[in-house]
Amino acid sequence: MGKVIRWVLGPPIATSALRQERLSNHWALGVLVVDALSSVAYATEEILIVLISVSLFSLWASIPIALAITALIFLVCFSYRQVVFIYPQGGGVYSVAKENLGENFSLVGAASLMVDYGLTVGVSIAAGVAALTSAVPLFYPYRVLLGLLVIIILTIGNLRGVRESAFIFSLPTFLFIAAFGGMFLYGAGMILSGSFPAAEFSPSARHYDEMGGTLGILLIFRAFSSGCTALTGIEAVSNGVQVFKPPESENASKTLVRMPSILGALFLGITFFAYYGGIIPKGSEETVVSQVARAIFGASPFYYLVQGATMMVLFLAANTSYAGFPQVASRLAGDDYLPHQFKDLGSKGVYTLGIFFLSIFGFLLLVMFDADTHALIPLYAVGVFVGFSISQLGMVVYWKRRGIREHLGPILTNALGCGATTLVFGITFFFKFTHGAWMLLPVIFFIVYKMKKAKKHYRMMEEKLKITGNARPKVSRRKTVIVPISHIQMDTLHALDVAVSLNPGHISALYIGSDRDLEKALRKEWEKQQELGVIPHHIKLHTILNEYREIQAPILEYLSEVQKKCESDTLYVVIPDVTPPKTLQYFLHHLTPSLLKLRIDNDRKIDAVVVSVSYKVYEDNHAPPDATVA
Amino acid sequence: MGKVIRWVLGPPIATSALRQERLSNHWALGVLVVDALSSVAYATEEILIVLISVSLFSLWASIPIALAITALIFLVCFSYRQVVFIYPQGGGVYSVAKENLGENFSLVGAASLMVDYGLTVGVSIAAGVAALTSAVPLFYPYRVLLGLLVIIILTIGNLRGVRESAFIFSLPTFLFIAAFGGMFLYGAGMILSGSFPAAEFSPSARHYDEMGGTLGILLIFRAFSSGCTALTGIEAVSNGVQVFKPPESENASKTLVRMPSILGALFLGITFFAYYGGIIPKGSEETVVSQVARAIFGASPFYYLVQGATMMVLFLAANTSYAGFPQVASRLAGDDYLPHQFKDLGSKGVYTLGIFFLSIFGFLLLVMFDADTHALIPLYAVGVFVGFSISQLGMVVYWKRRGIREHLGPILTNALGCGATTLVFGITFFFKFTHGAWMLLPVIFFIVYKMKKAKKHYRMMEEKLKITGNARPKVSRRKTVIVPISHIQMDTLHALDVAVSLNPGHISALYIGSDRDLEKALRKEWEKQQELGVIPHHIKLHTILNEYREIQAPILEYLSEVQKKCESDTLYVVIPDVTPPKTLQYFLHHLTPSLLKLRIDNDRKIDAVVVSVSYKVYEDNHAPPDATVA
Repeated sequence: MGKVIRWVLGPPIATSALRQERLSNHWALGVLVVDALSSVAYATEEILIVLISVSLFSLWASIPIALAITALIFLVCFSYRQVVFIYPQGGGVYSVAKENLGENFSLVGAASLMVDYGLTVGVSIAAGVAALTSAVPLFYPYRVLLGLLVIIILTIGNLRGVRESAFIFSLPTFLFIAAFGGMFLYGAGMILSGSFPAAEFSPSARHYDEMGGTLGILLIFRAFSSGCTALTGIEAVSNGVQVFKPPESENASKTLVRMPSILGALFLGITFFAYYGGIIPKGSEETVVSQVARAIFGASPFYYLVQGATMMVLFLAANTSYAGFPQVASRLAGDDYLPHQFKDLGSKGVYTLGIFFLSIFGFLLLVMFDADTHALIPLYAVGVFVGFSISQLGMVVYWKRRGIREHLGPILTNALGCGATTLVFGITFFFKFTHGAWMLLPVIFFIVYKMKKAKKHYRMMEEKLKITGNARPKVSRRKTVIVPISHIQMDTLHALDVAVSLNPGHISALYIGSDRDLEKALRKEWEKQQELGVIPHHIKLHTILNEYREIQAPILEYLSEVQKKCESDTLYVVIPDVTPPKTLQYFLHHLTPSLLKLRIDNDRKIDAVVVSVSYKVYEDNHAPPDATVA
Repeated sequence: MGKVIRWVLGPPIATSALRQERLSNHWALGVLVVDALSSVAYATEEILIVLISVSLFSLWASIPIALAITALIFLVCFSYRQVVFIYPQGGGVYSVAKENLGENFSLVGAASLMVDYGLTVGVSIAAGVAALTSAVPLFYPYRVLLGLLVIIILTIGNLRGVRESAFIFSLPTFLFIAAFGGMFLYGAGMILSGSFPAAEFSPSARHYDEMGGTLGILLIFRAFSSGCTALTGIEAVSNGVQVFKPPESENASKTLVRMPSILGALFLGITFFAYYGGIIPKGSEETVVSQVARAIFGASPFYYLVQGATMMVLFLAANTSYAGFPQVASRLAGDDYLPHQFKDLGSKGVYTLGIFFLSIFGFLLLVMFDADTHALIPLYAVGVFVGFSISQLGMVVYWKRRGIREHLGPILTNALGCGATTLVFGITFFFKFTHGAWMLLPVIFFIVYKMKKAKKHYRMMEEKLKITGNARPKVSRRKTVIVPISHIQMDTLHALDVAVSLNPGHISALYIGSDRDLEKALRKEWEKQQELGVIPHHIKLHTILNEYREIQAPILEYLSEVQKKCESDTLYVVIPDVTPPKTLQYFLHHLTPSLLKLRIDNDRKIDAVVVSVSYKVYEDNHAPPDATVA
């Protein structure tokens, strides 16, 4: 078992070998924008799904909506440019809010960020599988299974501690940009040469007006809020400033200009060709991107290239969560808000628990939502905007503290960003409330509540465990030893011998039974072994018959009574146990010894030292390291 | 938490209060035949599903097939009549085969019986829910959920240790018989008065011949094998002989005449009316029984009475598994074939583990097969016939050993029974192989293999733990004590104090770290506390820096080295631990102390006594029972 795990995960990585690679600007771009670009795969589709619910003739509205969203992308990126200068160590929403807005804001931001990392895994993998099944419909029935397979691969890859190789990780990004760019050029050429396949209908604003114009402002807002999923992932650059070569902030800020340009171009391109080709969303059957690529390239290898690149980019977007989530969780654990186990760097130099946690979350999302991108997105987009708004609000406070007049430019940029994202959050939350966004409220509040409780607990424990000047543990030297037994065998003798060697003032064995005949037989055996000199005569045997066939409760009761009687003694409970030759054979034995220890530890009426004496059984062909039987 | 469980499950039941109720013949009938009768709810439908796959005109064949199955029911019941006289203690297939056919047959029988108990839960609950959703289609989307709800209710009911109240448990059986009898009478009256709703078509053998007669012998066999599910549950009487008042066997044998008569009548009745009414199976939309009842009673209260009684009988049939499975499992555990935990009578006097196991099995079946009766039945029927055949074969051997000539009558009955059931097993297995029956082979072989391994393990352990005349555990009196520490706080002091009180020849603390600065700080603190007199000067501190951030592996390595060096000493590992005020708060702490104990126990290179010293932290408003801080 251990060997298999070792083989899958590879050898351990020494602490000295763990260091962050620095990347030049274009490799950094490849690595950091993959999450943002991946939303091109589904954002247009989300807009069209809303518009088509009214009529074919409202699809034209997708163009102005996409333009508005692109403007928003630029605005948010410009806002973030200021973050990377102030927080070159990585300005996640948690850090920014903690410093400028206090605990509550920072925890709400952190909670929404963590939930979003989980949703990124779910949405990106679902969309990646959809890119695959659009091209190869044969795989459609196995989409949940395929998604789980991807999660398993990502989990193992991240547990192995693969350092992000900029080359491999940015390759799909550049392939994706090139494939889409090529597709748009080729498509434009087809349009100009008149060979673009004619749409069966050509819905336009004019047609729409002729239909009577029921396209209300509400619908526009709904479609807009759906399309805002295009903004997910753009915060990655501000989190990863340390990936850049010095001057880090300078370089990151350059990327924050290039990224919205590329993202906007791809998003507008897909939206335009979808409109021009008269493409309508086909649900889970085929994605809009696949339809666009098919309209332009037919069933040629180029079509499969577009789909393949889309799929790869989406899976890599899921992978970015594996870089982000464990990091945030470990930082929160460092501040006592999450279990400290999230801080543990495993033998591979990765935050093992964070990786497992994220995988389980992604797994549950995929199964619960049947690997359906469209069902997952409402939750996704809303959470992202919580993070945006809190970040920008934090920046506004940051500037304000340093003087409004001196920083009028920056404060206005961030205030505008904050206002816009808050507005979009409100719109998205309102329109997606019944589509699952309501779930975010209780979930985020629950996480924040639990994080605060954790901090309080750690503080309390620290206080209680502190060594104060005059406080010292008192362990009296006289010992009372109780040995609970269920039979008289080699393991019992072993435990009794350890008990005797503790030099106790008082020692007794305790048997709890529910059958009078068995109890009599045990007493007889005890006396026999005492006569044979195997069991020392000064050990008394107490037997208790329990009418309700309980074992542990009567033991605890007995211990608590003994404790009351010999208050000045230290109470020792020596528990005999047997270790079978193989671990799986534990299933064939009662776990009473381990459970008893747990219950004694957790019983507030007993303050006992538990001594576990395990008698190891070896199979005949294996000799013990040191013969315990003379 | 403990209080909630107590409230749900009720107070414990004393051993003296656990006894078997004895029932007069008709109450016993009500209790024991419910499982057998319940198959009336789906057996006819299974026949029709096969026949309809050819054409409407082959449905007439359901009548002769049902007659043949009824004959088989009588034959099996007569075979079982001989079992109840020879095995009045309850002649389950396991007992009969163990005595007459040896280990292999008995284990195959036991394995198929256990699987069948699980399938009874799955099939009966699925069919019971189908009876409900046929009457109230509104519930159809929630059928899996409803099934799970029933399992939860059955689990709690059985965990509560509700003694089988013959009155309550047999009431639905009698209601079921009465409702179906009344329905048949009323239906017959309608036919005679000519008011029975005319079938849209009236398929008969004559029509069928006109069609060209493609109804082959294979189809007949397939339909027959599907209908054989009507035989499931009839072994219950032979298992429950002890429920009858004396003379038990006499009374049980009477029931084994009455039961097939009732079962046959109900089964033939439903099959006849389904044929006469031209009813064709509608899949999961509406059961055949529901269609028959609707044809006769319309939407009157009588229709709902039939459906309600059917549902109740099916749920009670599932409940009979809760009586049977834990019993068989505990008997197998008693013979060392299953984990001994299956023998434990909980505080409520029931085999808790067996009940949980069955519930989880039924739960998985319901979810995996989407609560679809028809998908589950192929596995079900096949397993039942394995049990029948082995039982009857055992009886043949029983008589043979006592002389063939003297017992020619009984031997012929059982041989006929054995031959018929084996033949039916063969037919069913052949026709249902691709419908899931193949699964039974690997599952049963796996269970048998594991049961034999378990027995071997228990024998080995018994041998190894036996106290032999001259063998005695050797624990040298000199002790070497190691205290692994991760910090210096109150819990550390407490553990060090316990270590000192063991009067060891050698004592040292062991710190494993991965950060040089932290290690230095700890060393400094250690020296400070030694200067202050808080830590005794004779305790040495060893620190090890691990490049791979491991903690447990270096500890084990160190212990194994110490063990080699001080071979004649007994090695004690004193592990400091902290008990937080509330159990759930364990999630906020590393479980290293408990895991370390497990790993030391399972490390073959170390033979150490593990001493766990838990420092209990109390919240401010709770005082410890005995102040440990002076």
